[in-house]
Amino acid sequence: MNKLIASIKEALRLAGIRDGMTLSFHHHLRNGDHVINMTVAALREMGIKDINLSASSLFQVHAPIIDAFEDETITSVESDYIGGDVGRAISMGRLKKKAVFRSHGHRPADIENGKMHIDIAIIAAPSSDASGNCTGKYGKSACGSLGYAMPDARCADRVIVVTDHLVSYPLPDFSIPETQVDYVVQVDSIGDPAGIVSSTTKITRDPVGLRIAAYAAQSILHSGLLKDGFSFQTGAGGASLAAAMYLKDIMLKQNIHGSFCMGGITGYLVDMLNAGCFEQLMDVQCFDLKAVESIRTNPRHREVSATHYAAPGPRGCIADHLDAVILGATEVDLNFNVNVHTDSQGVIMGGSGGHSDVAAGAKLAIIVAPLTRARLPLIVNRVNCISTPGSTVDLLVTQYGLAVNPSKTELKERLKAARLPVCSLEELKAKAEEMSGIPAPIFKGEKVVADVLYRDGGLMDQIHGVF
Amino acid sequence: MNKLIASIKEALRLAGIRDGMTLSFHHHLRNGDHVINMTVAALREMGIKDINLSASSLFQVHAPIIDAFEDETITSVESDYIGGDVGRAISMGRLKKKAVFRSHGHRPADIENGKMHIDIAIIAAPSSDASGNCTGKYGKSACGSLGYAMPDARCADRVIVVTDHLVSYPLPDFSIPETQVDYVVQVDSIGDPAGIVSSTTKITRDPVGLRIAAYAAQSILHSGLLKDGFSFQTGAGGASLAAAMYLKDIMLKQNIHGSFCMGGITGYLVDMLNAGCFEQLMDVQCFDLKAVESIRTNPRHREVSATHYAAPGPRGCIADHLDAVILGATEVDLNFNVNVHTDSQGVIMGGSGGHSDVAAGAKLAIIVAPLTRARLPLIVNRVNCISTPGSTVDLLVTQYGLAVNPSKTELKERLKAARLPVCSLEELKAKAEEMSGIPAPIFKGEKVVADVLYRDGGLMDQIHGVF
Repeated sequence: MNKLIASIKEALRLAGIRDGMTLSFHHHLRNGDHVINMTVAALREMGIKDINLSASSLFQVHAPIIDAFEDETITSVESDYIGGDVGRAISMGRLKKKAVFRSHGHRPADIENGKMHIDIAIIAAPSSDASGNCTGKYGKSACGSLGYAMPDARCADRVIVVTDHLVSYPLPDFSIPETQVDYVVQVDSIGDPAGIVSSTTKITRDPVGLRIAAYAAQSILHSGLLKDGFSFQTGAGGASLAAAMYLKDIMLKQNIHGSFCMGGITGYLVDMLNAGCFEQLMDVQCFDLKAVESIRTNPRHREVSATHYAAPGPRGCIADHLDAVILGATEVDLNFNVNVHTDSQGVIMGGSGGHSDVAAGAKLAIIVAPLTRARLPLIVNRVNCISTPGSTVDLLVTQYGLAVNPSKTELKERLKAARLPVCSLEELKAKAEEMSGIPAPIFKGEKVVADVLYRDGGLMDQIHGVF
Repeated sequence: MNKLIASIKEALRLAGIRDGMTLSFHHHLRNGDHVINMTVAALREMGIKDINLSASSLFQVHAPIIDAFEDETITSVESDYIGGDVGRAISMGRLKKKAVFRSHGHRPADIENGKMHIDIAIIAAPSSDASGNCTGKYGKSACGSLGYAMPDARCADRVIVVTDHLVSYPLPDFSIPETQVDYVVQVDSIGDPAGIVSSTTKITRDPVGLRIAAYAAQSILHSGLLKDGFSFQTGAGGASLAAAMYLKDIMLKQNIHGSFCMGGITGYLVDMLNAGCFEQLMDVQCFDLKAVESIRTNPRHREVSATHYAAPGPRGCIADHLDAVILGATEVDLNFNVNVHTDSQGVIMGGSGGHSDVAAGAKLAIIVAPLTRARLPLIVNRVNCISTPGSTVDLLVTQYGLAVNPSKTELKERLKAARLPVCSLEELKAKAEEMSGIPAPIFKGEKVVADVLYRDGGLMDQIHGVF
């Protein structure tokens, strides 16, 4: 039994590649990933057509696959996040079929319950042995957690591991076991380390961002949730990290011992773990080198699958246990609905990722965003795309004030009692429009280019083309 | 969402227990397990009938379930090993349907490919949080690895965790994630620590055992396999441990750095890991406290699933990578077939466990056994039950000499060149019979009480009743 195959093309052939199949990829190599482009190049050379590309996320680095939209090598895309030129190309109508957006929790749920059948999963693995025991913790392209790849490896009909660091059998600290792997392909490079992880996490120095962060931290403090056992998630954006910094100070000063942080993990959350603010990190994706080093060496920093992270369902997931989360937004509307899918022109520039999952799961879901960006107001009558329904959003924090979801009367009273600048969404909207005017309505083409599914499987919104 | 249920009975009811279902159990608590008996008592109280009991192993401690054979609460048993009074009861015809024996690798393979459908899996977990993230590494009933429970948890329709050590959420070092668990039941005690793990592993002091062990170690040394990267499995029996002791001396003296040990892990293999004889331990079950302590603290001591350990299939398993294994036998016949299912009276007293899996996987499968036991010869014309086919057995080591499988000509030459006392099976048989006479044929009833399946799914043998 020899699983080592000379090329991706040969592995695809052995895996029975055919027109119309669904191929899946994970996004831990982020904007440094080479594996999707290499695989799509192989498909084009083989003359394969009509592939459904299921990727947990797509980034600017994947722009070369747009050519495969044109020649119909790829005719549909299912993803949780589509950034850069790929999103723009879909908004321009260059993909034959509608794209389908899920969340980071809904995707593994649909993979595990069979609604999204994967014919061939391709796992970009920073370390693997020749039998396919593989991990993201070691190697020149180390990315830390392989959480998003786990459901794909478990459920796909055929699994191909692509690695640039082949180690002797058995790789002891495997994330995916050989029992889930059919073929292993060694290549020179699976990715560009500079695009895979940041060398450092950067806390914003922008005074607007710092003010928003301070308000967010104060909101958590006064929400009643910040006590022993507290659990937390925040993103890797500058203001989110600054909020974590303020929160760390509060927790250390008040001697509060939290339970866990989850999600994409940054070095700043590692620092909070090591400072005793939290007992453990539950990590579906590492954002920087410090997080990669920590997941490799600290048993309290644990790799978890995307299913475990956020998949909705009767058995629950870590997201369901979350106290507070800090999330971003490109637009928020008067019903607290949040858009993270499209930009100010209505062009696809991202996606939910875990946004809608953790907003639904957390007791306190905080949206942080500046009230205007590039002279465009944050708050609109109706977001161009509902990424996260307003019913799951508790609080919007801007530099000019905090708007509490009207259903959260206790939270509103608590924040007012703490003398935080609580106001209404309508007041914030008026303030933003006073600063930057009312923007012209964006052009919305007739054709729907993407369906946005909610984590319960229902259709939440549709994104129209801009052509 | 609250998974905490007050009793096993209530959890069974919520899981939809019905007559005729298959319930599964794992055996890491070995002869200290309380959970199978508690569950069967609950089934009897509920009046449930016709249950198929699928347990990775059954021991003397499970004798109370024989009453559930009588009242037809349990009408069939599928297991890899059935010891003590339970095996005897089956041999006496007290179970309504035929028992089915699989190996430790075949069982998870059939669970994962759907041939053995589990309605409800019951996981005895020495530590769990209230959402079902659980492990065997901590708690008063700590057993170390939960490898045998992993396929059951992954594939059963409903999963109930039974624990006597409930910890706060989330248990970070989980072996089975909450996403595979429906209900959690807290009980006073899941097992008797004295029966779960031995306090120490004991190397034989018996001169016959020591001679056999020395021959086995010498055989490995001279087989050509003992070099850097060597991999090894041995059992917890006194002679097997003594062979490991001799092997350790050889490896240290000759500065040989092995790759991995696998299987049930004892403190002696932990010592070999720590002494540098091996790079890592791949652990599906811990046999003693030192192994439990090691799997908890040493990242080079890794828990693996039963599937990963030994499941046959195109994707392979760790057993397929094994160089040498030392195994026991109750009988060996002139075709090198080995019996570990029945005793000298033809009564069920064990089962393959991983015996047939690792014999098939290893490059060198060594059987160690004294030439006679209780004045009965080891070697017979035809074993009462074929547990492991002779085609996968390379060498029989007794205190009077070594018999090499005739198909292994190179091994035979190597051992002869090393001046080891190589002889034929026929010579050993004659010697044994000279010592203890030819035993009377055992009584074989008409009724078949158990089918013994081989790891490829085929029927290898059948065990007749003794009534």
